[in-house]
Amino acid sequence: MSPNLADFTFLQGVKIVDLTQFEAGPSCTEALAWMGAEVVKIENPKMGDPGRRLRPGQPDTDPYYFHAFNANKKSITVNLKSPAGLALVKDMIRHADVMIENFAPGAIERLGLSYDVVKVINPGIIYAQVKGFGEGSPFEQNLAFDMIAQACGGTFSVTGDKNGPPTRPGISLGDTGTGMLMAITIVSALYKRRETGKGHRLQVAMQDAILHYMRINFATQGLTGRAAERGESKVPGVSNAPMGLYPCAPGGPNDYVYIMTSRANPEHWDRLLKLIEREDLIGDPRYLTPTDRVAREDEVDEIISVWTRKNNKLDAMKLLGEAGIPAGAVLDTDELNKDVTFEQRGIMQTMVHPVHRPFKMPGWPVRVDGRPTRVMSSPMLGEHTEQVLSDWLGLSAQAVAALKAEGAL
Amino acid sequence: MSPNLADFTFLQGVKIVDLTQFEAGPSCTEALAWMGAEVVKIENPKMGDPGRRLRPGQPDTDPYYFHAFNANKKSITVNLKSPAGLALVKDMIRHADVMIENFAPGAIERLGLSYDVVKVINPGIIYAQVKGFGEGSPFEQNLAFDMIAQACGGTFSVTGDKNGPPTRPGISLGDTGTGMLMAITIVSALYKRRETGKGHRLQVAMQDAILHYMRINFATQGLTGRAAERGESKVPGVSNAPMGLYPCAPGGPNDYVYIMTSRANPEHWDRLLKLIEREDLIGDPRYLTPTDRVAREDEVDEIISVWTRKNNKLDAMKLLGEAGIPAGAVLDTDELNKDVTFEQRGIMQTMVHPVHRPFKMPGWPVRVDGRPTRVMSSPMLGEHTEQVLSDWLGLSAQAVAALKAEGAL
Repeated sequence: MSPNLADFTFLQGVKIVDLTQFEAGPSCTEALAWMGAEVVKIENPKMGDPGRRLRPGQPDTDPYYFHAFNANKKSITVNLKSPAGLALVKDMIRHADVMIENFAPGAIERLGLSYDVVKVINPGIIYAQVKGFGEGSPFEQNLAFDMIAQACGGTFSVTGDKNGPPTRPGISLGDTGTGMLMAITIVSALYKRRETGKGHRLQVAMQDAILHYMRINFATQGLTGRAAERGESKVPGVSNAPMGLYPCAPGGPNDYVYIMTSRANPEHWDRLLKLIEREDLIGDPRYLTPTDRVAREDEVDEIISVWTRKNNKLDAMKLLGEAGIPAGAVLDTDELNKDVTFEQRGIMQTMVHPVHRPFKMPGWPVRVDGRPTRVMSSPMLGEHTEQVLSDWLGLSAQAVAALKAEGAL
Repeated sequence: MSPNLADFTFLQGVKIVDLTQFEAGPSCTEALAWMGAEVVKIENPKMGDPGRRLRPGQPDTDPYYFHAFNANKKSITVNLKSPAGLALVKDMIRHADVMIENFAPGAIERLGLSYDVVKVINPGIIYAQVKGFGEGSPFEQNLAFDMIAQACGGTFSVTGDKNGPPTRPGISLGDTGTGMLMAITIVSALYKRRETGKGHRLQVAMQDAILHYMRINFATQGLTGRAAERGESKVPGVSNAPMGLYPCAPGGPNDYVYIMTSRANPEHWDRLLKLIEREDLIGDPRYLTPTDRVAREDEVDEIISVWTRKNNKLDAMKLLGEAGIPAGAVLDTDELNKDVTFEQRGIMQTMVHPVHRPFKMPGWPVRVDGRPTRVMSSPMLGEHTEQVLSDWLGLSAQAVAALKAEGAL
């Protein structure tokens, strides 16, 4: 079974001048590309987006990071420091619907593409900026990477062992999480612009965006009046048992199943006892209510673990699910990668690239009319220079060659 | 200094029938509300959204969770199990641009509001569904909560100590992370619909959405051919030192600063040595290159910790930032809550509620033309029943009272 892929056309005809690099900006423009926009990465002719390589100055030995965040885009090379190159990008901006950048603070202004300049060239443009810290923040001028935004935005403080140090969540939420919030705002601005023709300046900071994802922790703080805590695999603020990770066979580093019984549904506990063949404990006053079980949480966890240790995590998940108990196996990237059901559903797709090895990666997870959108190759550096300059600006092949010769491209 | 708040109007006039509860659905419709859409929560007259309370069957003693995900919305009560109530919602659907639900698998069909039914009522509607597992997944019928989606989507496998168990990231990415991807798709569909008038069915699963946020880990797997690992506060796959958390004064559970020196910028290390008054080590061959420092990472970390332990985390962040070294303090919800600069910038706003205590929470972090959007109160149960039924359907107060009397509202 292979998936019935579509090419989403929701944003067909939307032209995006993409001056982003690494992940926070590129994850945003990739989402827009998956929605059907024409996203043109403007890259410097020497090296391109530094996200193209793990080791600066080395060849593209790690193209996967770049593939993951640049599918379905076009790439043109422009030397923004040459007057002709800068003029060319200004011409593109005149034809664009959106311009987006995530350079270090002050860099876009030094390049001569500040909002004040751009809005004169194209008053209808949506001008989007992603920075580490917000305008007006005491740290406005600081550099940021994902980990720094996450540390300063609170996620480290709520992740890890209750008595251990703060811990980095293993995902790049400071980057992609920010990119998604900007994408929602850009498309909303485009929606209104169909009516008004008006442009807008949009700005987001990674630290601020992280707070959006921390709202459940701010809610806990609202309730307790204290800083939200770390809770390992439990959910601090939710007092319930059983809830958490239980070890499975054969005991590898990710051989665990998450089991959650709802306070709202007392049947979960009885169903669980039945499944693990401990019907003798149904109705036992020691474990009757969630409060009783929290008080004897170690005992409860051990009763369950005796059973989970005998099962592998996928069997356990299946048996628990069939018994009506919310549960999920801890899966790692290798297991997710090898699970063919993701490919069959078009959730994982293989990017076929003209140079690099095929790369299986997650595509956009939302289906439209039952179909996922197609993952297309990330562009090679400057792959679409001629095509885009011809399409957008009507430049001839000779004109492009001349610009190349003078170092503008 | 108080922020100059706006009321975003990007989605002004967009009518949303919101049949969601808890977080994955509500976070999506709240984003749309912040963009200016009219979001009407349809709640059952007895208890409303179960996210209104921590303990089922108890009063709303924990309104903060509900506030966090339901700002700027309206609420009406409808008994979907009464024929008159169902007919009323169908009438609303006729006038709506978007309908969204995140009930358990099969529930919306049992209520009589499947896509097949709804698209006949309103062929132009965007019909959006959020589930735990995807259509066609072996776990399609399973219940899911945030933790389960995260376990099955991979985030646990990459979070925590290298030699410890998988760990839950302390944020509800399975919920809000999914909601954001659906919001991008809904607004994109609305954008196209201005041209075509055509409706669409949109579907997302929380497990699938998590893969989107795991792409950096899939890139690591692409490079190594093995499952991406946990790395505590380091970033697995990125071999560099110094990088990570360093302990600060006075030694509390969140008194750490994240320091990151870039492989791309060898000056970071020299700048750091100068700042911590260890110029004697500049040029020392033991610590010259990132590779040298990785080989002596424990020594490097101790050299830095001697300095960080003497500073509190905010001073350390400030000094490191001024010296041009990427760094960020680990902040917890209490510190973020008390930091007035977030309020001054409109990133944190205080929700004023007619009944509950004021609640300071993060608003939408993207600014439009320099201004953040205003956080309005979450609705009380049924607060807008009369208003919405009058606005949307032209019902009189008497008609609403009659519907109430017969148990439809």
